[in-house]
Amino acid sequence: MRKVSESTVGRLSLYLRLLSELETDGVQTLSSEALAQRCGTTAAQVRKDLSLFGTFGKRGLGYSVAELIAALRSILGLERRWRVALVGAGRIGVALLGYQDFRTQGFDIVAVFDRDAGKVGQRRHGVLVRADAELEQGLESESIDIVIVAVPGESAQAVVDRVVAAGVRAILNFAPVKLNVPAGVALKNVNMAVELEALSYALANSGRRSRRGATPAGR
Amino acid sequence: MRKVSESTVGRLSLYLRLLSELETDGVQTLSSEALAQRCGTTAAQVRKDLSLFGTFGKRGLGYSVAELIAALRSILGLERRWRVALVGAGRIGVALLGYQDFRTQGFDIVAVFDRDAGKVGQRRHGVLVRADAELEQGLESESIDIVIVAVPGESAQAVVDRVVAAGVRAILNFAPVKLNVPAGVALKNVNMAVELEALSYALANSGRRSRRGATPAGR
Repeated sequence: MRKVSESTVGRLSLYLRLLSELETDGVQTLSSEALAQRCGTTAAQVRKDLSLFGTFGKRGLGYSVAELIAALRSILGLERRWRVALVGAGRIGVALLGYQDFRTQGFDIVAVFDRDAGKVGQRRHGVLVRADAELEQGLESESIDIVIVAVPGESAQAVVDRVVAAGVRAILNFAPVKLNVPAGVALKNVNMAVELEALSYALANSGRRSRRGATPAGR
Repeated sequence: MRKVSESTVGRLSLYLRLLSELETDGVQTLSSEALAQRCGTTAAQVRKDLSLFGTFGKRGLGYSVAELIAALRSILGLERRWRVALVGAGRIGVALLGYQDFRTQGFDIVAVFDRDAGKVGQRRHGVLVRADAELEQGLESESIDIVIVAVPGESAQAVVDRVVAAGVRAILNFAPVKLNVPAGVALKNVNMAVELEALSYALANSGRRSRRGATPAGR
């Protein structure tokens, strides 16, 4: 098994998403050029990415959309279902619980933990909220594969340390902090506020530059 | 004005988020060490990032939380409100419309566009859905600063091309594709499915490796 870069894995996800849309539209075969163009990459990149995992497509005929979808789902570990726990039943956490596409994609949120005693024992989108103190035990008894962290930033590293100590090896972080995990634990971050603020920063500063005239000072 | 890297801007967002949480908790002053530790970085990095924008904090006293929040809000362009349009009133788009934190953070979604005639004329979370054909005119008349793209991947580049041609310089993309924008246009991407699939890939493959034994093959 070759070591595959994160950016390659990201492109495989994009290929899969595009192919799934095309399949819904009734498309049956596709050239690497057509796939590349829709993904903002090159046909050579598409062929190189796929060649890491086997031989796909026929010369002159392109890829079978259905076969390539099946192969990508297998490569990405999407042929099975994953058991997911959510830590933090605040606004973002509950929105994620209600996000049906997770389930469609094979990710089942089967446990929720919160440290607010007022929430413990209630249900959110049908899932029982458990006490934070039961975290380690719940991760074990529910055979959790992936933990979604949606707690305030100041609590996030402590939660992650407990989750990692409990043996979980995949974390999706929505808390607005940079988290540290040991080697062998996969960590991904999603933060809309940070992305929006990067846009706001870009707009605010391009505006200042243009008001100052055409010569950017100090660059 | 210095050229500031994207990762610096990202850290400024994290500092702001952490400081806002601490202010809510009643914290009034903070050392660069304490801020760094909570953000998963070093005190030297915090001081370097902030020094790009002026002099903050007093030796031995640390930063005033309120003053640093105000400074970061100014730097990030968050002292004003931004007018945002959403293109695509599907599942993700409507979830974003309902996400109250956007408004709290100064981002007002004031226009929604969709190409589904069945949705046009209806309201989603109080905002009128307009026809896709009115996109350019609406971006202009509503003085839109930022466009959120939440359309299927195969339509996203065409939408972005129109948005850019209409003069918008900041785009937040939720479509599962890599988009191309000209220099001078800020583009950020959010894609939960891609992040989740990267985790699923990591789990699926670490599992295979460990079953093969302790010596990773082919690395």
